[in-house]
Amino acid sequence: MEKIKHKITVMSGKGGVGKSTVSVNLAVALAEEGFNVGLLDLDLHGPNVVRMLGLNDKLSVDNGEILPAYYGTNLKVISMAFLLEEGAPVIWRGPIKTTAIEQFLADVRWGELDFLVIDLPPGTGDEALTLYQSTSIDGAILVTTPQVVALDDVKRAAKFVVEMREAPLSASKDVRILGVVENMAYLRCPNGDVVYLFGKGGGERLAQELEVPLLVKIPMDPKAMEMMDKGMPPVSFYRSTEFEQAFRELVGKILEELKGES
Amino acid sequence: MEKIKHKITVMSGKGGVGKSTVSVNLAVALAEEGFNVGLLDLDLHGPNVVRMLGLNDKLSVDNGEILPAYYGTNLKVISMAFLLEEGAPVIWRGPIKTTAIEQFLADVRWGELDFLVIDLPPGTGDEALTLYQSTSIDGAILVTTPQVVALDDVKRAAKFVVEMREAPLSASKDVRILGVVENMAYLRCPNGDVVYLFGKGGGERLAQELEVPLLVKIPMDPKAMEMMDKGMPPVSFYRSTEFEQAFRELVGKILEELKGES
Repeated sequence: MEKIKHKITVMSGKGGVGKSTVSVNLAVALAEEGFNVGLLDLDLHGPNVVRMLGLNDKLSVDNGEILPAYYGTNLKVISMAFLLEEGAPVIWRGPIKTTAIEQFLADVRWGELDFLVIDLPPGTGDEALTLYQSTSIDGAILVTTPQVVALDDVKRAAKFVVEMREAPLSASKDVRILGVVENMAYLRCPNGDVVYLFGKGGGERLAQELEVPLLVKIPMDPKAMEMMDKGMPPVSFYRSTEFEQAFRELVGKILEELKGES
Repeated sequence: MEKIKHKITVMSGKGGVGKSTVSVNLAVALAEEGFNVGLLDLDLHGPNVVRMLGLNDKLSVDNGEILPAYYGTNLKVISMAFLLEEGAPVIWRGPIKTTAIEQFLADVRWGELDFLVIDLPPGTGDEALTLYQSTSIDGAILVTTPQVVALDDVKRAAKFVVEMREAPLSASKDVRILGVVENMAYLRCPNGDVVYLFGKGGGERLAQELEVPLLVKIPMDPKAMEMMDKGMPPVSFYRSTEFEQAFRELVGKILEELKGES
């Protein structure tokens, strides 16, 4: 893992806020900037990140090392889904998860990476704790929708990250919250009108409360969602749209934040 | 409870599909038709149904009977929230829930009701089981959004209802699925364009699979959501809209379905 420059977790308070969509498109956007990127999907309950990238769920092993799937030439992808039979999640208990996560970190042939984007399950369960204890995470991105209820949940995730700086068993003493991503912030109607589906300004309020930047507002775009279902990440396949633009902007903000760090 | 003609549960497979919004507006729409209606909120994790109706959470008792809150003259409302301190849900364990539900059924002064609309938590947990075992439920309404993932969950809820017809301890041998309500079916843009936020036709497919009617498609309407937050149910306060119309239609369909029964 020491060959990985930046390890960034994508977190949310609750499900259904589009965290995996953010992880996948962020990883693709970083790769398209020319960075060597890894995407580690630890969210079993979320949508299948591997399918979102149009990859098939076959895992291969070479000399005891797990070989990641490739999206393009410089995005490597590993998902817990690789290890799962249909419906296996129910029997996927804490200790097994812990082992799997440590293996993903130790035994995957990631090679030299500029970024490892880690899609964590909603909340702050075993996966998050194991991850933050097993390896040094630099940054956390908090994904939310504008609703108040979603905001309450994400604050707990933020608290978890901050506590990991102090926690005795934590390997992530320097982790910081890079900022808030407001997903499904608005919908652009065919005629250009903007509709705020879930209220307005929730992301700003959360960012202010947490004293972190609001990194970007991502629009709700049914066409983009369709593409995700078809394994065509919009950042690559849905160019010159506000959706794509939002992820270019997100990459810029993250690079800034990380520069500010060193 | 024998003074209650029809007991209808509003169910969903997962949270976030607007089940409580459907329960509240359905109850209001039935009351506005002149029926005597009760609304029983058993979904602690959902939004506060009492607040959605602009009522305050005070519970009064008279001669050992719980007096419901009133919305207008002929809608009586009881919510588990009445019994809860801030943050109490965490300690609200199965056995306590069971007792509370039985008390809501036995010790609330419902009086003569044409309809009792019961807002159940997502899935098929203690609340659903206790309810179906404690009293005779006539009908279940399944609320879903168009996404496939939401559909998978709601099928399990449908299976639960069907099983309750046979289950030895069930008091609901005659319960039937009245049909499917597709919520957030579409958004009407300011200029009239229709946007399908979460895909199209999911409700129809589910209804066909379950061989039950698709009762209605309810639009996603941010203004309506705002009103719910303010305690102004759109059926009463947001007239001559597709949102209101959808609930008038839902009432008509339910009355038809129940007529078909007797």
